[in-house]
Amino acid sequence: MFTACIVGASGYTGAELIKIISQHPQLTLTHCFVSENSQYQSMLVSDVHPQLSGICDLPLHALASTHIASIRNDFDAIFLATPHEFSHDHLPAMLNGKAVVFDLSGAYRLPNTQVFETFYGFAHQHPHTLKKAVYGLAEWYSDNIKMAQYVAVAGCYPTASLLALKPLIENDLLDLSKLPVINATSGVSGAGKKASATTSFYEVSLQAYGVLNHRHTPEIENYANTPVIFTPHLGGFKRGILATLTAFTKSGVSLRDIQNAFDSAYAHQPLVRVKDSMPKLDHVIHTPFCDIGFAFDPTKQCVVVTSAIDNLLKGASSQAVQCCNIRLGLPQTMGLI
Amino acid sequence: MFTACIVGASGYTGAELIKIISQHPQLTLTHCFVSENSQYQSMLVSDVHPQLSGICDLPLHALASTHIASIRNDFDAIFLATPHEFSHDHLPAMLNGKAVVFDLSGAYRLPNTQVFETFYGFAHQHPHTLKKAVYGLAEWYSDNIKMAQYVAVAGCYPTASLLALKPLIENDLLDLSKLPVINATSGVSGAGKKASATTSFYEVSLQAYGVLNHRHTPEIENYANTPVIFTPHLGGFKRGILATLTAFTKSGVSLRDIQNAFDSAYAHQPLVRVKDSMPKLDHVIHTPFCDIGFAFDPTKQCVVVTSAIDNLLKGASSQAVQCCNIRLGLPQTMGLI
Amino acid sequence: MFTACIVGASGYTGAELIKIISQHPQLTLTHCFVSENSQYQSMLVSDVHPQLSGICDLPLHALASTHIASIRNDFDAIFLATPHEFSHDHLPAMLNGKAVVFDLSGAYRLPNTQVFETFYGFAHQHPHTLKKAVYGLAEWYSDNIKMAQYVAVAGCYPTASLLALKPLIENDLLDLSKLPVINATSGVSGAGKKASATTSFYEVSLQAYGVLNHRHTPEIENYANTPVIFTPHLGGFKRGILATLTAFTKSGVSLRDIQNAFDSAYAHQPLVRVKDSMPKLDHVIHTPFCDIGFAFDPTKQCVVVTSAIDNLLKGASSQAVQCCNIRLGLPQTMGLI
Amino acid sequence: MFTACIVGASGYTGAELIKIISQHPQLTLTHCFVSENSQYQSMLVSDVHPQLSGICDLPLHALASTHIASIRNDFDAIFLATPHEFSHDHLPAMLNGKAVVFDLSGAYRLPNTQVFETFYGFAHQHPHTLKKAVYGLAEWYSDNIKMAQYVAVAGCYPTASLLALKPLIENDLLDLSKLPVINATSGVSGAGKKASATTSFYEVSLQAYGVLNHRHTPEIENYANTPVIFTPHLGGFKRGILATLTAFTKSGVSLRDIQNAFDSAYAHQPLVRVKDSMPKLDHVIHTPFCDIGFAFDPTKQCVVVTSAIDNLLKGASSQAVQCCNIRLGLPQTMGLI
Repeated sequence: MFTACIVGASGYTGAELIKIISQHPQLTLTHCFVSENSQYQSMLVSDVHPQLSGICDLPLHALASTHIASIRNDFDAIFLATPHEFSHDHLPAMLNGKAVVFDLSGAYRLPNTQVFETFYGFAHQHPHTLKKAVYGLAEWYSDNIKMAQYVAVAGCYPTASLLALKPLIENDLLDLSKLPVINATSGVSGAGKKASATTSFYEVSLQAYGVLNHRHTPEIENYANTPVIFTPHLGGFKRGILATLTAFTKSGVSLRDIQNAFDSAYAHQPLVRVKDSMPKLDHVIHTPFCDIGFAFDPTKQCVVVTSAIDNLLKGASSQAVQCCNIRLGLPQTMGLI
Repeated sequence: MFTACIVGASGYTGAELIKIISQHPQLTLTHCFVSENSQYQSMLVSDVHPQLSGICDLPLHALASTHIASIRNDFDAIFLATPHEFSHDHLPAMLNGKAVVFDLSGAYRLPNTQVFETFYGFAHQHPHTLKKAVYGLAEWYSDNIKMAQYVAVAGCYPTASLLALKPLIENDLLDLSKLPVINATSGVSGAGKKASATTSFYEVSLQAYGVLNHRHTPEIENYANTPVIFTPHLGGFKRGILATLTAFTKSGVSLRDIQNAFDSAYAHQPLVRVKDSMPKLDHVIHTPFCDIGFAFDPTKQCVVVTSAIDNLLKGASSQAVQCCNIRLGLPQTMGLI
Repeated sequence: MFTACIVGASGYTGAELIKIISQHPQLTLTHCFVSENSQYQSMLVSDVHPQLSGICDLPLHALASTHIASIRNDFDAIFLATPHEFSHDHLPAMLNGKAVVFDLSGAYRLPNTQVFETFYGFAHQHPHTLKKAVYGLAEWYSDNIKMAQYVAVAGCYPTASLLALKPLIENDLLDLSKLPVINATSGVSGAGKKASATTSFYEVSLQAYGVLNHRHTPEIENYANTPVIFTPHLGGFKRGILATLTAFTKSGVSLRDIQNAFDSAYAHQPLVRVKDSMPKLDHVIHTPFCDIGFAFDPTKQCVVVTSAIDNLLKGASSQAVQCCNIRLGLPQTMGLI
Repeated sequence: MFTACIVGASGYTGAELIKIISQHPQLTLTHCFVSENSQYQSMLVSDVHPQLSGICDLPLHALASTHIASIRNDFDAIFLATPHEFSHDHLPAMLNGKAVVFDLSGAYRLPNTQVFETFYGFAHQHPHTLKKAVYGLAEWYSDNIKMAQYVAVAGCYPTASLLALKPLIENDLLDLSKLPVINATSGVSGAGKKASATTSFYEVSLQAYGVLNHRHTPEIENYANTPVIFTPHLGGFKRGILATLTAFTKSGVSLRDIQNAFDSAYAHQPLVRVKDSMPKLDHVIHTPFCDIGFAFDPTKQCVVVTSAIDNLLKGASSQAVQCCNIRLGLPQTMGLI
């Protein structure tokens, strides 16, 4: 058995982590932390997340800044379900101890410090730590994850986008002089727990946002090795992301080439299911899977790939545990299906 | 043509009033007001309510407290889509001029001042004004509405509840020693526009609230002339209220008695549709109608009545205009269907 | 390890059973059956239920009528997720072998054969089998379930209703001369998988149905030992039931009496969570829990109790497995949380 | 006053037509027809569409095939809300009389007969009639509509797509060597009224369909004068389409060029609203408007345009009436806002 803690346990991805780890055969969740000023400190997990009552009834401890460094030796795994700024500031102090850190924020996902100023609103102070970060897209970086001291778990849109795009890129099937186009629609949980006019029930309705300037664009582009045009949309549902990739193929590419690319990428990956039809969002909700389907038009030389994930699971918490399983030498699906 | 203004034009019921009055054949909307401190002042109606662009592009004027008294002579009709406190404080100053006032808040709906402390959180300062208020449940109080100087438009739950209950009460069909039970489910627009954790998209899900202490209980009881047990629920949809009344009938009451009660109440009321089956919420959404259906069990001596309204229309704005039509001698459906 | 099969594996409750049993530590799902004429025979579970791909990839075998009797010795547990008529006709032949049968249909839930003609549309042919059936409301009939050869798993509305009502009845807190009123709203999965105009997406909207004549009424009344007024509603959501019970208390009953009744009933029941506020439907969706909250008005001498379940889980499949756990001497939550 | 009839009045677009025409100041709806074999014949409009009770209580007459030709002289306007096959077969017989015909089906939208075999499943028998059809995309073909004897009202996806795309095409701003990509999401009413597993409430969830072979693709391509990649999606909501166009601009194109293109196309079009942000679907639901927003990336030389319509209104019935208004010399918004 390995011990684990969650920092940022009061949010939506925190709740999913608590649920998964509480039911995991080889992980023991011993501590749940919230920030020093959190309104939730000293409450029970089950007060803040009533759906978890009877599953986890631990208290939410305030994590004093003076105490942060010491937790690195108290656990085998630390999960950070924290804001970008918190992870940025405090992750370095958590390293070099016993714990492996799994950071669900975006603070260490990109090697280039400059991106942070443009897209995250802060100048990155830890370029050295940044450089050694391992990207937690489990199906593509497991070799690195196995040896990582900390993993920057992939973002939700990037997970859906990259799982669709990378097989085509890695097999050199695309004419990248024509930029791949990714449209994606996310449920409102992607915006987190904070109440806002944008995410009030009456106001939510299908709408594009962050068009041509969303912070997940550089993350997708960095790990796909190509610029893309990424347009996210907010949808009127609670959980899930459906991404639709339209890409232009090189001359001579056939449907079989595309099928082979997806098969070779995922035939042995238990948490990516390549379908022979287009996936439906509901089929992945409350699951750790990514479902993928595609179609090809040889005349127009284009391929359309759709991928579906639960943004809180494969797009966040279940992928974090999947990375943790890989890192600890456990079967990657343990505790997930 | 009659002139009208709306005070409190930035909220959800304000938006519906703007839409209705802008398309009304005999009312001209000349001014839209918001409160002095509103973040929306000087914006256009169509900036705050983009769905109204091309329908109404008036500006939202701040209504200075010093100016409030003077509007009573500037319009034929004043619609107050304002918080209870605002209406409470300022309605008296708007009287005794040319304008008839239609108040959509709860501030003048109950004759008993004491209720306000218990249920609205303020002591009522205007008992004299309160006493002369006419209750704006259009189908039941039109004789008073015709001569009113100000109308306290009925609340949303009370409208749905009373339209179902009053025919049975007025025809003396109920054994009131067993209290009538009203369960109702409302869409989230009933909570108004202010963002809150309760009404964020991810959090909304069917749930009872305000159980045995909701402020609409005394309003229902006052106009039904009987205590009731009223349990409101928040539902995961944007608009509408479905109320389900269960009541116990006097010995000897027949299905025909019940049918007659509803027919005599509403056969000549164009905006209440008595159906031969149970109404579906969608059939009244975006309409000014109340749909009613009922069933009777002679063995158990009980009747179940369900009624459906759009909470923002028959439960607020269209009923306000319906009252205004009645007051101004126009057909009561003018501008509504 | 115990072996299990599911008959009727192509429907919604079948899918939930497959998922639960596939992940259960002590049950092995070895066969999934559909009826002889099913369009789904010979397909894979994961073709019919794509969400289960990677979790269960068994084939769906057609269960020939000639073969039905023999399965009673092939499994430790048989789960019938079949239409009432199928269970009625074939359950007797499955008895007297090795297997314990858990029937999710309504065919053996009521001791009185006459009820079936009125509410289920068929005359019951097996009164002897009926008499020995054990009712599978796990928290209330576990002593009988422990020794049952077959369990008639409780219906969805009755589960939500009885878990709310029985503590008050059993503790003699109610004035039953005034009938308890139960309003409940169910998601559309309650209607099963067959496409119909009633359950098409565009048509679904909050509406009462089966008013004063729903087939779950006699089931509730039989196990509550009192007539009730039960009004079900169809809601615009996929899963879950919220039931709201309004009941009249005997003179002298206090809030503490009510609290004690619920505590003594459920304090040691891990799958019923008594809350200090009204439960929210989402908190039980995709879980095996029933959440319960209540409020009391001493003046009106009435109590309002709301209970929430996932209709496909606590209202069907997870409760079947809970009963199976009890019957097999396993912890009742095994494989469920 | 002009007289009008609706053929195919029992479906969803029929219901919207009935509502609009019943409230139209210059059109009188005198007859509603259904097909000879319709289950709805002789019922009242308000039985089939309960939401219209009190708005239109006409009966639904069966339109005998022998009678079809004669209706061309009975009305000023005939609206066909009929299946493609019915319009294909019977529209020619309705011509050359007094009536102008507005066909909401796809049967006469494309000049090329061959397309019908591939995409509609029938060989077109009326190439001559086809050639003279006027395409009813009101903002772009009003000169032809003014003189048309019959109008093939634009499809729902094509309306949303073409209103977004044509300003860019007509102003020669796009590099069409890179195909424009259109992703669109439609509410389930787009699939019509017939119950099916695909549109049952429990099954509907965000999913692409008809990928690279949807029948609206040739319609978009024909009126945009360019091949496109069109990917439709079914969304979990009742009404509306949001289309997201991604297109590649010619070298040197600026944001101002794009703004000018939209302004010159729509500044004087009352039913297209060009916004300075991305439109939200709810803002056009139950309205006859198309809302459009766009963003431009000069580095990647691409433009993203999103457009929102109510598929049953601007994508069908209100656009039919808009075309009718244009044809009859009335203000194009009459009866619509």
